[in-house]
Amino acid sequence: MSVTEINSPAATTRLSAAFRAPTAGSPPIWLMRQAGRYLPEYRATRAEAGSFLDLCYNPRLAVEVALQPLRRFDLDAAILFSDILVIPDGLGQPLRFEEGVGPVLMRLEDTADVARLSLERMRAHLEPVYETVSRLRAELPRAVSLIGFSGAPWTVATYMLEGRGSREFHLAKYWAYARPEDFRVLVDLLVEATVSHLSAQVDAGADVLQLFDTWAGVFDDRGFAAWVEDPIRRIVARLKARYPQVPVIVFARGAGARLAGLAQRLGADGLGLDPTVPLAWARETVQPETTVQGNLDPAILRIGGEAMERAIDDILAAWRGGRFIFNLGHGILPDTPPQHVAALVRRVRGEA
Amino acid sequence: MSVTEINSPAATTRLSAAFRAPTAGSPPIWLMRQAGRYLPEYRATRAEAGSFLDLCYNPRLAVEVALQPLRRFDLDAAILFSDILVIPDGLGQPLRFEEGVGPVLMRLEDTADVARLSLERMRAHLEPVYETVSRLRAELPRAVSLIGFSGAPWTVATYMLEGRGSREFHLAKYWAYARPEDFRVLVDLLVEATVSHLSAQVDAGADVLQLFDTWAGVFDDRGFAAWVEDPIRRIVARLKARYPQVPVIVFARGAGARLAGLAQRLGADGLGLDPTVPLAWARETVQPETTVQGNLDPAILRIGGEAMERAIDDILAAWRGGRFIFNLGHGILPDTPPQHVAALVRRVRGEA
Repeated sequence: MSVTEINSPAATTRLSAAFRAPTAGSPPIWLMRQAGRYLPEYRATRAEAGSFLDLCYNPRLAVEVALQPLRRFDLDAAILFSDILVIPDGLGQPLRFEEGVGPVLMRLEDTADVARLSLERMRAHLEPVYETVSRLRAELPRAVSLIGFSGAPWTVATYMLEGRGSREFHLAKYWAYARPEDFRVLVDLLVEATVSHLSAQVDAGADVLQLFDTWAGVFDDRGFAAWVEDPIRRIVARLKARYPQVPVIVFARGAGARLAGLAQRLGADGLGLDPTVPLAWARETVQPETTVQGNLDPAILRIGGEAMERAIDDILAAWRGGRFIFNLGHGILPDTPPQHVAALVRRVRGEA
Repeated sequence: MSVTEINSPAATTRLSAAFRAPTAGSPPIWLMRQAGRYLPEYRATRAEAGSFLDLCYNPRLAVEVALQPLRRFDLDAAILFSDILVIPDGLGQPLRFEEGVGPVLMRLEDTADVARLSLERMRAHLEPVYETVSRLRAELPRAVSLIGFSGAPWTVATYMLEGRGSREFHLAKYWAYARPEDFRVLVDLLVEATVSHLSAQVDAGADVLQLFDTWAGVFDDRGFAAWVEDPIRRIVARLKARYPQVPVIVFARGAGARLAGLAQRLGADGLGLDPTVPLAWARETVQPETTVQGNLDPAILRIGGEAMERAIDDILAAWRGGRFIFNLGHGILPDTPPQHVAALVRRVRGEA
């Protein structure tokens, strides 16, 4: 019996149970970007690793940083430490992270640039990521879920076409609306890449998956249907055919009123909700259809104190009766005091 | 009889009629930032004026740029050429626009800084703005509405506290959540300033008002209720008591599912909808309650062609049966070809 088998998750972790029925008592909790710069031990490991990407591709250190928050806080899941842009990096569009700028890529200009990308190259290039998942699963207690993740095609494509983070997405929208045939070539490749990447994570021991569509909130109806919903729906269908037991959470940030009916349209088991989703509306409209995950404002976690306690209590009161995973509405901010996270977890657990 | 009286708007302009009942035929149309950098004649006048603020405070030239789009396009309204940040500038928090950065203000640190601001100073400082409104009304045909506007307190406060545009709004959210008593002092001042500013515009000849809450989409429930809805509700109530005949449109960008019931909660006559609002949902949920205004993606206007035609037709088909003003979902982008705007207006008019 391999280490992985010994340590494979219990048939029911607290997290996986939340996809089937409302949780008795406090909801399961994990936090987006729970491993990260707000932790001094993360900053130490990051310094040891070299660059951010070096850390992502170093299984020993990536496992270490993924475990760090679980040593401090009573969380129900670890999440793979990686980045949504390892997909373009693996496909052959080299990536670097510049201080004060963020990710920088040589942007794709046309379908000839897309044709030079390679799924085979990606699978080989991302072996260290899958090794990280496998080592992490071996280290984790059986009751703790291991979340694998990937960026969704639209969000990943924005970086590939803009060459960096964007506010307006002019180039990506130009492909989406003015060159839809070309854009489809790229998105189809990203659907394949995402299925491959997530499948490899499940094979290595991930028992829950999350798709991040961080920039989903920039589209009109047609754009959202074509470039957010359709690729995700195809990815989820492919994953479900292979791994029917693995829940898939979709975090389509900024989806707003489009969250109604979205889980069904995508075939997803849960939806991540950002802080702008009204709690009562989500309870009445979204939660009857799926597991809701969210939605504390990371800025309020950073502030802490009474404002945070009130915001936590609002979320618990609104969603406790249904399928529910406590989380933030976006990732932890780098200058968040770790003691605020401790206070948050205690309050969600009913201990403070 | 004064020039203003001669040229006061007809009891019913096409725009004002859209607040009472569905428009027979094509909806009225105006476009956010219809006077602006995308027009070569705007760039020429702007160069003559000196700085952007010089242009805002020069009635002759501000009238000229407000009229420029009406000479090119068959629009149903002119909008005052000004900026939402003339309020802090008028109150005594000096403002400048830096190339490539945008607005820069010496940021407020505490309530002592707020106490140094002066409503009286603002009223005097903004006289050129009211003269612009009055001259503009005199120049406009009676059938064309003149829209006055102001930034809403939350959005204006973000610039006053951050000192410039922001993505995360850390400082403004810190005031909102951790120093709510201090923040209320500022917001109360901005409510007074906004009522004063909009009242003076109506007195000078504006016949429709719009409040821009560009950054409304960053809040959880409590933040939205306290800092978006409550100040706007108070402003609208004060305006309605004085000018019951003047319609007020609220553009709370990013309000998402919070748009349901919002017009009633605010007492507004219309809601501006950004491109992320689903058309069918808005028809079923928002339009029965109020006039909807929007929501073509400015990025699609910039792209033009078939993608634009399809998007226009989608909006017309969805909303034509109810109270409806055609507009963009945000302002015209600076590099938009003017001929795309011409094609848009013709298509909405049913002429192309």
